[in-house]
Amino acid sequence: MPEFNAPLRDMRFVLHQVFQGPALWARLPALAGTVDADTADAILEEAAKITGQLLAPLNRSGDEQGVTFAAGEVRTPDGFKQAWQTFREGGWVGLAGNPEHGGMGMPKMLAVQFEEMLYAANCSFSLYSALSAGCCLAIDAHASEALKAIYLPQLYSGQWGGTMCLTEPHAGTDLGIIRSKAEPYADGSYRVSGTKIFITGGEQDLTENIIHLVLAKLPDAPAGPKGISLFLVPKYLVNADGSLGERNAASCGSLEHKMGIKASATCVMNFDGATGYLVGEPNKGLAAMFTMMNYERLSIGIQGIGCAEASYQNAARYARDRLQSRAPTGAQAREKPADPIIVHPDVRRMLLTMRALTEGGRAFATYVGLQLDTAKYAEDPDERDAAQRLVALLTPVAKAFFTDTGLESCVLGQQVFGGHGYIREWGQEQLVRDVRIAQIYEGTNGIQALDLLGRKVVADGGQSLKLFAAQIRSFCASEPPYADAVLHALGQLESLSQWLGERASSDANAIGAASVEYLQLFGYVAYAYMWSRMAAVAKAQRKQEPDFHDAKLGTAAFYFERLLPRILSLEASIRAGSSSLFQLSAEQF
Amino acid sequence: MPEFNAPLRDMRFVLHQVFQGPALWARLPALAGTVDADTADAILEEAAKITGQLLAPLNRSGDEQGVTFAAGEVRTPDGFKQAWQTFREGGWVGLAGNPEHGGMGMPKMLAVQFEEMLYAANCSFSLYSALSAGCCLAIDAHASEALKAIYLPQLYSGQWGGTMCLTEPHAGTDLGIIRSKAEPYADGSYRVSGTKIFITGGEQDLTENIIHLVLAKLPDAPAGPKGISLFLVPKYLVNADGSLGERNAASCGSLEHKMGIKASATCVMNFDGATGYLVGEPNKGLAAMFTMMNYERLSIGIQGIGCAEASYQNAARYARDRLQSRAPTGAQAREKPADPIIVHPDVRRMLLTMRALTEGGRAFATYVGLQLDTAKYAEDPDERDAAQRLVALLTPVAKAFFTDTGLESCVLGQQVFGGHGYIREWGQEQLVRDVRIAQIYEGTNGIQALDLLGRKVVADGGQSLKLFAAQIRSFCASEPPYADAVLHALGQLESLSQWLGERASSDANAIGAASVEYLQLFGYVAYAYMWSRMAAVAKAQRKQEPDFHDAKLGTAAFYFERLLPRILSLEASIRAGSSSLFQLSAEQF
Repeated sequence: MPEFNAPLRDMRFVLHQVFQGPALWARLPALAGTVDADTADAILEEAAKITGQLLAPLNRSGDEQGVTFAAGEVRTPDGFKQAWQTFREGGWVGLAGNPEHGGMGMPKMLAVQFEEMLYAANCSFSLYSALSAGCCLAIDAHASEALKAIYLPQLYSGQWGGTMCLTEPHAGTDLGIIRSKAEPYADGSYRVSGTKIFITGGEQDLTENIIHLVLAKLPDAPAGPKGISLFLVPKYLVNADGSLGERNAASCGSLEHKMGIKASATCVMNFDGATGYLVGEPNKGLAAMFTMMNYERLSIGIQGIGCAEASYQNAARYARDRLQSRAPTGAQAREKPADPIIVHPDVRRMLLTMRALTEGGRAFATYVGLQLDTAKYAEDPDERDAAQRLVALLTPVAKAFFTDTGLESCVLGQQVFGGHGYIREWGQEQLVRDVRIAQIYEGTNGIQALDLLGRKVVADGGQSLKLFAAQIRSFCASEPPYADAVLHALGQLESLSQWLGERASSDANAIGAASVEYLQLFGYVAYAYMWSRMAAVAKAQRKQEPDFHDAKLGTAAFYFERLLPRILSLEASIRAGSSSLFQLSAEQF
Repeated sequence: MPEFNAPLRDMRFVLHQVFQGPALWARLPALAGTVDADTADAILEEAAKITGQLLAPLNRSGDEQGVTFAAGEVRTPDGFKQAWQTFREGGWVGLAGNPEHGGMGMPKMLAVQFEEMLYAANCSFSLYSALSAGCCLAIDAHASEALKAIYLPQLYSGQWGGTMCLTEPHAGTDLGIIRSKAEPYADGSYRVSGTKIFITGGEQDLTENIIHLVLAKLPDAPAGPKGISLFLVPKYLVNADGSLGERNAASCGSLEHKMGIKASATCVMNFDGATGYLVGEPNKGLAAMFTMMNYERLSIGIQGIGCAEASYQNAARYARDRLQSRAPTGAQAREKPADPIIVHPDVRRMLLTMRALTEGGRAFATYVGLQLDTAKYAEDPDERDAAQRLVALLTPVAKAFFTDTGLESCVLGQQVFGGHGYIREWGQEQLVRDVRIAQIYEGTNGIQALDLLGRKVVADGGQSLKLFAAQIRSFCASEPPYADAVLHALGQLESLSQWLGERASSDANAIGAASVEYLQLFGYVAYAYMWSRMAAVAKAQRKQEPDFHDAKLGTAAFYFERLLPRILSLEASIRAGSSSLFQLSAEQF
């Protein structure tokens, strides 16, 4: 019953009208010959087809069937293998990948919209692709030319899959205490041993080979995070001619049974002296892995938006169809036994909340994509540097805020259905289960918040925040709708940041006590900026397609009147400080 | 791995110290000879055993196995039938039931604490009992003496089970449009026909007979909610001697497949000219059903508290055990590779949020129980009336706020576990799935909010709210801790109520636009009152058990500093009014 239609018009609104992607691409030499407005639209339309028609229909059956495990082999649900074949032949894994090694070299601001469609259609399926794409990014950035030549083309083409092996049973957030080891071998390779858990796609039947990126410690490594190295460990060793050789000593020990994303294989991986190749410098593996991690963080953030969009589409359709009670202002559909529930203010509140958060998120993801493209392709090093700072500042916000609001939206989308929302066949409950993991994996949202406030704001001396604030102020100088509200909220964020920076110097717990609420407040301020930008464009271009642009203006009004005030409580809670967190001893809990 | 230990000390704190249940019981003649402090403690201790040792161990296996359906019969998971036998022999179904017909006649303020344990241990199992108990309440209040004599003793003893049959495929919230019909029959009985959905325990293998309370329309009934009557329809007809006779034409057509409460049978029930007996007056069935419905609403609210308590216990245990990273203030457990995560401010924020909301909810549920006891047993009719008004006002708050905060707590309890929280074996994800339904069934939380603001506040002219406010002011006059904060928040609630009452007279959408946020604001104010009461007792009795009472004071501080400020945003959003909800047409969504 659930179906997914990519919101192409909304995506074009953000990509073309709000952020003028084509104009940016035209001035960046690396992109100028690769993509223009028409190419981008054609790609998004093709993406809409593959996600709506190929992947979405496998979402529920994938959830019902799940992945299965026997004799070390994982079997994905019916249809996944064929779908992967079609998907990989379309070149989607390498959409934004390096063209020198077989990627399509498309801009990130386009790729984030494709990713949103992917997650909206089928989270489990998407993960196999997202991990491969992130794996490529790390290999491309840090591996030797020889490794790149062997592995990248096969990963970009989706003939092989990629994974990210960090977590161990005793070490998740705290990677400094991992136990996996790598011993140097005479031929320059290493023998990697250890157990990794929660490995998405660690084993699967979609690809011919699987390339694991594994964190492990060299024999002489220093303790803690500065003693971690990164290794490329293939499931099958690769011969000099590129053909597959022997099976490597890397195997799946079991699958986790999870709340959701049941068609995604979450594996316990055992490395028993597996042959691996060093990626990047010894003991600098964590930084190299973060190339992949940062990619995955944004991608997983987008999972939150995708699930929310899918839930919204179902909920809006249901609210237009379901007849129940009469509008408070009197019957609207007199010929029917009751009015469609979309007449009720509280149903509209739920739908508009979903809509305002999802569209705000889409705009912000595209904005972060724009910064990533600028950081990668701009000719001016200062421009690259500024964009890179914004990426670093905004990535934790994107990951955590997209997924926190993603859960909220999916819960609301389930609530719109009443009792039917709890029944599996309607699909809304699966979205809640599937989106929930996104607040947890790739660094919990609590960790994102510490990264934001501790590193990206306080330790940074507020420099990156200043850049972001300057952009917002510069935009507001053009007197767009809601400029005052945006500037006021920005002022609150800045003074709070200042205050927290001061507190942090005398209270070691100040950052951790405030971080999660600070990140959320930051998110609402960022979305206010996004909604002001969207409203400005909608107002200016209203006469073409008034229905479409009026809906944007109406949603903006809802955001500013009903959602932005959430920062009031967040600020009050933050300013209460850390003391009430430490009145109980561990035993008193 | 998850386990449940009833929080007996905390329950005694609320029951004896804060609300002085034994003193109340001693002055109510109907209770004076039935229960005192020792009896209450003995019952709670026995309840702790049965929930912790008998029901909690069946929670995960029940979730994994679920209910199954074949040839019209439902099979509950392994162990449920034996557990029900033990449970029913303990008299637990009739704990607060009418002693004239086999109930134990215990006070509601004790029963709510038992219910919390039940839901904490095993939501699915609890529902079979909760439906039976509520069914008894409606029969006791509205059925003829003959029906009471036949059905109540068997229901109280748990030999038979009870159900509540309201919803039809096209009619959930809007019961006025139900299609089920009842034709009078020569012998004074009726023939009931129709299809009911979402019927908890509509068919099961725990009890010998199942007694359905069914809403249906008589042939000459007026349209809408005023043309609905209530019928008692047994699965097996009962002979004059009380033995079971023929199978009635009431059968289960199928089971729903749900997000959670998988061991609870959610049935489609077909009534095909089934023999039924009128309960109460013709066309006044909805009011009679509301006797049961209001019982279930409070009970389902308590599901929110129970799940939150279970999740909290697991999360606190995990946070003390799990070693990961060092405290911001420096290593606490130097001998270990990392500190337990309970040293981290954000982990404490999550645990304290759960704790403050759960304990606030427990106190409030007990307070509502106290009002129910007073309304039922007080000798002074004015005292009964005032208590009944409070019950009517506070029941929708309890149902919706307990379950909204219940989901929040369970999501936080899952988050504390990081990736492990998403894995089934740890139990935290099941609690999220199981608690989620509680925001939906027995009237969605949106419907509770409309009931609260529309009927219980605005249509009531604020009279019941005045009673509640007077109680709070009277308590605050004794200058307890946080009196100023409580009074300030109460003032906000009152002025907002006044403002909304005025808006409602000119804007038919004003109530629906504000209701959900209003209910939440009401909940935070009510919990502030509860926390002030708890803090007052903890402060006064601190010297006995300082550790215990200091933990209460510390949690109170957290509540007032970090959670109560949530009302700021709620108020701002409410005061924005309804206009931003109506800028989009149905087609623009």
